[in-house]
Amino acid sequence: MGRVIESARIRTVRVREGKLYAGRKGDRVAVEEPLDIRLNGQQLSLTMRTPGHDVELIHGFLHGEGIIRDREDITEARYCDGAVLDDGSGFARNTYNVMDFTTTRPQLLPLVTRNFTTTSACGVCGSESIDAVRQKSRYTLLNSWSLDPRTILAASGALTDQQAVFARTGGVHAAALVDLEGNLLVVREDVGRHNAVDKVIGWALLEDRLPLRDCFLLVSSRASFEIAQKAYMAGVPLLACVSAASSLAVETADEFGMTLVGFTRAADDGDGRMNVYTHPERLDLSAAEG
Amino acid sequence: MGRVIESARIRTVRVREGKLYAGRKGDRVAVEEPLDIRLNGQQLSLTMRTPGHDVELIHGFLHGEGIIRDREDITEARYCDGAVLDDGSGFARNTYNVMDFTTTRPQLLPLVTRNFTTTSACGVCGSESIDAVRQKSRYTLLNSWSLDPRTILAASGALTDQQAVFARTGGVHAAALVDLEGNLLVVREDVGRHNAVDKVIGWALLEDRLPLRDCFLLVSSRASFEIAQKAYMAGVPLLACVSAASSLAVETADEFGMTLVGFTRAADDGDGRMNVYTHPERLDLSAAEG
Repeated sequence: MGRVIESARIRTVRVREGKLYAGRKGDRVAVEEPLDIRLNGQQLSLTMRTPGHDVELIHGFLHGEGIIRDREDITEARYCDGAVLDDGSGFARNTYNVMDFTTTRPQLLPLVTRNFTTTSACGVCGSESIDAVRQKSRYTLLNSWSLDPRTILAASGALTDQQAVFARTGGVHAAALVDLEGNLLVVREDVGRHNAVDKVIGWALLEDRLPLRDCFLLVSSRASFEIAQKAYMAGVPLLACVSAASSLAVETADEFGMTLVGFTRAADDGDGRMNVYTHPERLDLSAAEG
Repeated sequence: MGRVIESARIRTVRVREGKLYAGRKGDRVAVEEPLDIRLNGQQLSLTMRTPGHDVELIHGFLHGEGIIRDREDITEARYCDGAVLDDGSGFARNTYNVMDFTTTRPQLLPLVTRNFTTTSACGVCGSESIDAVRQKSRYTLLNSWSLDPRTILAASGALTDQQAVFARTGGVHAAALVDLEGNLLVVREDVGRHNAVDKVIGWALLEDRLPLRDCFLLVSSRASFEIAQKAYMAGVPLLACVSAASSLAVETADEFGMTLVGFTRAADDGDGRMNVYTHPERLDLSAAEG
């Protein structure tokens, strides 16, 4: 797309032993642009994202909200023709920031209304948020596999190596689906951590791989409720994040039987550590010393 | 509130020289709970946040969206009485997750509609997002001050020292308003970086300190469009972030004359570095060597 990284001329400032040093250099920043998501012409969401893989992003978003189930639910996905901008050249160019999805299954449209209207309940709380996910979900998580924790560390190291946009900008999050042998099936980056997750789950949906029973989801960021929700909706039995997990992510994972791993820290030599917040029974610790 | 940090029992896993070690320990996670924001009984937003300083958060949120201007625009702020949950004790307890703001200025209500309805424009792009902020803003930024970059580094070090929740959980972002002498006027933490910013700007609004002409905004996270928008709406002339800035944050700051500093890295001894993306003229570099 050529719209993932932008160049910038910046000033650099350094302080060394209390003295100021100033310079100039070329730098790169991660691109952030709005994406207007429409279903049958109706706007569902306006999100800020890094352009690229928009079709995956929207499939993943709609799936995470429980609006679509599989690729057949969407018959057409196209950038809005009228979404043009006069950039001063005299020619109107498409912004590629408005995408309209078409569904021929009218039964999906009430789900949109259900998702995006005010709740009538007055007692909103974490448990209610978890119950709302339960109502939308279709999968139960598979218990019949176990994973060597070293596979998570190896995948985390491999993800770092593949974060091309992060390496050049330091400004994006990454998400990856990893199989039980530790192979990264897909890696996506985005300024929004939820978008990176939507992109990999949208990829899986388009590949007819849902539910993701033989994978785990690895994210370079923290795990919030929203990330745990998206993972559970896709049937992922294990979610590993590089940074911290929130209380509601822990409660969600615990409730749905998902293994939640945080502070995944991998060294170059395969050593490292992690915290296991919920359902450690999926990790093979039989060879572990106390 | 006692709802900012939660205890957890976790499993720890370590790999050293290829060998597995497993343990158990008590840990702490940052609390994430939904907040249902209502204006005159109408739901505006459902956001996930760390409880505490909700009144500030909502004032900051409404101000950032251009809906309110000063504290007099809100006549009452209260947790919804009916927002109760039966926790099994037989007594219903308030969730403190639903907050209703009351305004007696009916002219504000159309602003809500303007903010939360579908845009009719088809050509959404970064420039349009910036134009939308321009239409909502009331302040122009002050050019008549200059700041020693060492003040930013000192404040960044001081912010790290004051991140009490982060120190115990590793799972929250912080925002601070800092005066030109480097004093931290207010520090707030939250699982959402935008919420932390809303809380400090809401604090300033309630203290009748807007526009924030003699302050800068320091955030522990990245700078996205949304953060730049909130800073500009509050009249802050300089935004410094510890991590990267996005392309649209850079464009927004450039357009509105705001100084945007990224990758602020402070060492314990006062040394450090930063990248200046826009409007370096507010930084006093006269003593700097090349």
